[in-house]
Amino acid sequence: MNARLPHQLTASEIVQAIAAGKTTAVAVAESCLGHITEREPQLGAWHYLDPELVLAQARALDQRGSIGPLQGVPVGIKDIIDTADMPTEYGTPIHQGRRPGIDAACVALTRRAGGLIMGKTVTTEFANFFPGKTRNPFDPQRTPGGSSSGSAAAVGAGMVPLGVGTQTTASTIRPAAFCGCVGYRPTWGDLRCAGVMEASGSLDTLGLIARSIEDVALYRDVLLGVAPEALPADSAAPRIGFCRSHIWDQCEADTQRQIEACAAKLAGAGAKVSDVTLPGEFTRIEDAHRWISSFEFARNRAWEIDHHWEMISERLRSNRIRDGLDCRYETYRDARDFLERQRLVLDDLMADYDVLLTPSVAGEAPIGLHSTGNASFCAIWTSTHVPAVTLPLFKGPNGLPVGVQLIGKRNNDRRLFAAARWVQRAWD
Amino acid sequence: MNARLPHQLTASEIVQAIAAGKTTAVAVAESCLGHITEREPQLGAWHYLDPELVLAQARALDQRGSIGPLQGVPVGIKDIIDTADMPTEYGTPIHQGRRPGIDAACVALTRRAGGLIMGKTVTTEFANFFPGKTRNPFDPQRTPGGSSSGSAAAVGAGMVPLGVGTQTTASTIRPAAFCGCVGYRPTWGDLRCAGVMEASGSLDTLGLIARSIEDVALYRDVLLGVAPEALPADSAAPRIGFCRSHIWDQCEADTQRQIEACAAKLAGAGAKVSDVTLPGEFTRIEDAHRWISSFEFARNRAWEIDHHWEMISERLRSNRIRDGLDCRYETYRDARDFLERQRLVLDDLMADYDVLLTPSVAGEAPIGLHSTGNASFCAIWTSTHVPAVTLPLFKGPNGLPVGVQLIGKRNNDRRLFAAARWVQRAWD
Repeated sequence: MNARLPHQLTASEIVQAIAAGKTTAVAVAESCLGHITEREPQLGAWHYLDPELVLAQARALDQRGSIGPLQGVPVGIKDIIDTADMPTEYGTPIHQGRRPGIDAACVALTRRAGGLIMGKTVTTEFANFFPGKTRNPFDPQRTPGGSSSGSAAAVGAGMVPLGVGTQTTASTIRPAAFCGCVGYRPTWGDLRCAGVMEASGSLDTLGLIARSIEDVALYRDVLLGVAPEALPADSAAPRIGFCRSHIWDQCEADTQRQIEACAAKLAGAGAKVSDVTLPGEFTRIEDAHRWISSFEFARNRAWEIDHHWEMISERLRSNRIRDGLDCRYETYRDARDFLERQRLVLDDLMADYDVLLTPSVAGEAPIGLHSTGNASFCAIWTSTHVPAVTLPLFKGPNGLPVGVQLIGKRNNDRRLFAAARWVQRAWD
Repeated sequence: MNARLPHQLTASEIVQAIAAGKTTAVAVAESCLGHITEREPQLGAWHYLDPELVLAQARALDQRGSIGPLQGVPVGIKDIIDTADMPTEYGTPIHQGRRPGIDAACVALTRRAGGLIMGKTVTTEFANFFPGKTRNPFDPQRTPGGSSSGSAAAVGAGMVPLGVGTQTTASTIRPAAFCGCVGYRPTWGDLRCAGVMEASGSLDTLGLIARSIEDVALYRDVLLGVAPEALPADSAAPRIGFCRSHIWDQCEADTQRQIEACAAKLAGAGAKVSDVTLPGEFTRIEDAHRWISSFEFARNRAWEIDHHWEMISERLRSNRIRDGLDCRYETYRDARDFLERQRLVLDDLMADYDVLLTPSVAGEAPIGLHSTGNASFCAIWTSTHVPAVTLPLFKGPNGLPVGVQLIGKRNNDRRLFAAARWVQRAWD
């Protein structure tokens, strides 16, 4: 057994330790529960957590007689994802006490692999703007980012090694970056969202939050429902396109300097790094994203709008929902068509690179809990359906984590992981 | 008031009659309930129908003081679509008594427009192979088609003017064709599926079943959440590509003759009709469709597979689920990528046409209730995400309806409707 406590291990280390008989699912669960007891009052990462249910799952796993690929690994599940044995309340009082009675596909696949559903993590209201109670694990005055706030804060604070979130704009990469985690948004369409509240189906994906890229790769295979395959032991230095993007000036000066230094360091370590300029049309992507996400969101929530209007936050009503209700179908359709074309443009642009290197966020998590931060550095890539990883490489001027984002080619998520691991090692 | 009884009217006629004060939602509902009482014992279209709940809705609509675009129109909802006030059981005993407590987006938008949710219509098991109790309204020895069996049978039998189904392969067009209805599968992605059981998200859409193309156009606008816009009063003769397709030999000889006669008649009426040959790669579409639909279905149903395996039909287990569990991720991903490319190929091919004319089904509904019929004539178009309409133009050798299918361009569903109306008028 490692000298670290069980709750400090990565998912892969937990599975290895359990397989080697050095610890048990119960011991891991107790360690996590202990750490949660200590940190949760300040952090507010959990919307629902029943220690008895956790320990009952852990005991059942220890008695199962087989070692799954996520054996005994505690996972936090964003509270827009259905769980058979816990409530799922979408971050709104409208759905208080809602119990769907079926596990979402990703939850069932997690349990099949031996994973332990620790509880439900805080989401913003309907996975949108209005924040929940969660605070940043590195500074309680600051936002953890959103909308997968609780999953990122729980992983960042060492409560659980894995968290599941979703991303429609920046909802996984941004909180992972603010909370010092590895975050992953998959190629759109790869991981099933059955049983997950739809915010905007044309953009939604699951998102994974972890402590290592190896854990992300492992959990992705579990959620694809395939036998996990370790990343290759070694990989060649990647061809990296350094993409400041057309919104580089939204990036804080310190972040700009650090990412430029990172690009230089990676080149020094053997990567072929060259500057990439995005096509001029990409400046229109964020607008298209806003129309699509608002149009679809407003229709998806028709029941709540008609039956519980007064329980929806003013911020959600007067932004996303108002935009969506005002949007003409033709505007929506043209935006969808525009993004489909930009995906093909990006496919071509990426032919010469393994990954793009670009900001995850503008800088450290901003002070205050009223906003979850700038989403623009993610919206470009969410809209183009490419896979993205954020790595916690830097610290900002206040010592808080700032992620750097790597963008892969559509349908080549494993190549992105290999490149991300190379970058992580070259950086370390 | 028309001499016909209220349950015999189209949706548009019901709205007009109510707006003109010639009938009420209660009178329409009572007429439909009366006809259902008469036909349902033989037909088995309904999985859940509570007359008291229907009449309570109708009374509330009559008191609402405003006339919605679907005012007082009774609608049958496929039982994989969530309803706040009725059970939703997915065509399986596993989910007996399931009450989701929220309306699916399409149900909430229907109610917002003044529509009346008549009840839940029979679906095959998980909207897949294994049939429900429903029989064909024109011959009880024959299948109504599936998986939207109850919605098509209910509309075909004159129980309700509108039905909502879904389509992942042929599940709307085929039963609509077998039951003598107008059926519509929209451009993939247009109509929100929040609250609808996901079979295979890369292929799933809602599907609408009606008595006229005008009703389809009206209901589509309601479900898009936009103000309904009538089809233009007149439209030019369309450019029609007559597409026998590479599976023409699966079409029964009588159907072949009738579709060829139809093409000739439409040309005679002024349409520019020319033969279209699909690219050779299209022969691979059905295989790609099978991998994608099976891979996704098997993961979406992970909870049922792990907790209720013995309650899943042997047919579903040994076909769709087995295929899905056996399918490698790379096979699935390559199939998805292949279909994405074929969509662009079809976009190009359709540049010279307004619509394609092609079979909906091989012929009349087959005898027997064990199978829901040949799906191949729909799989091509489902996979390529184009909108499709089936019109009940023919009768087969036994006097049963046989649909003909019109295929539109992606994102141009209204142009498809205009062409379909032109075809319907030219045929009449």
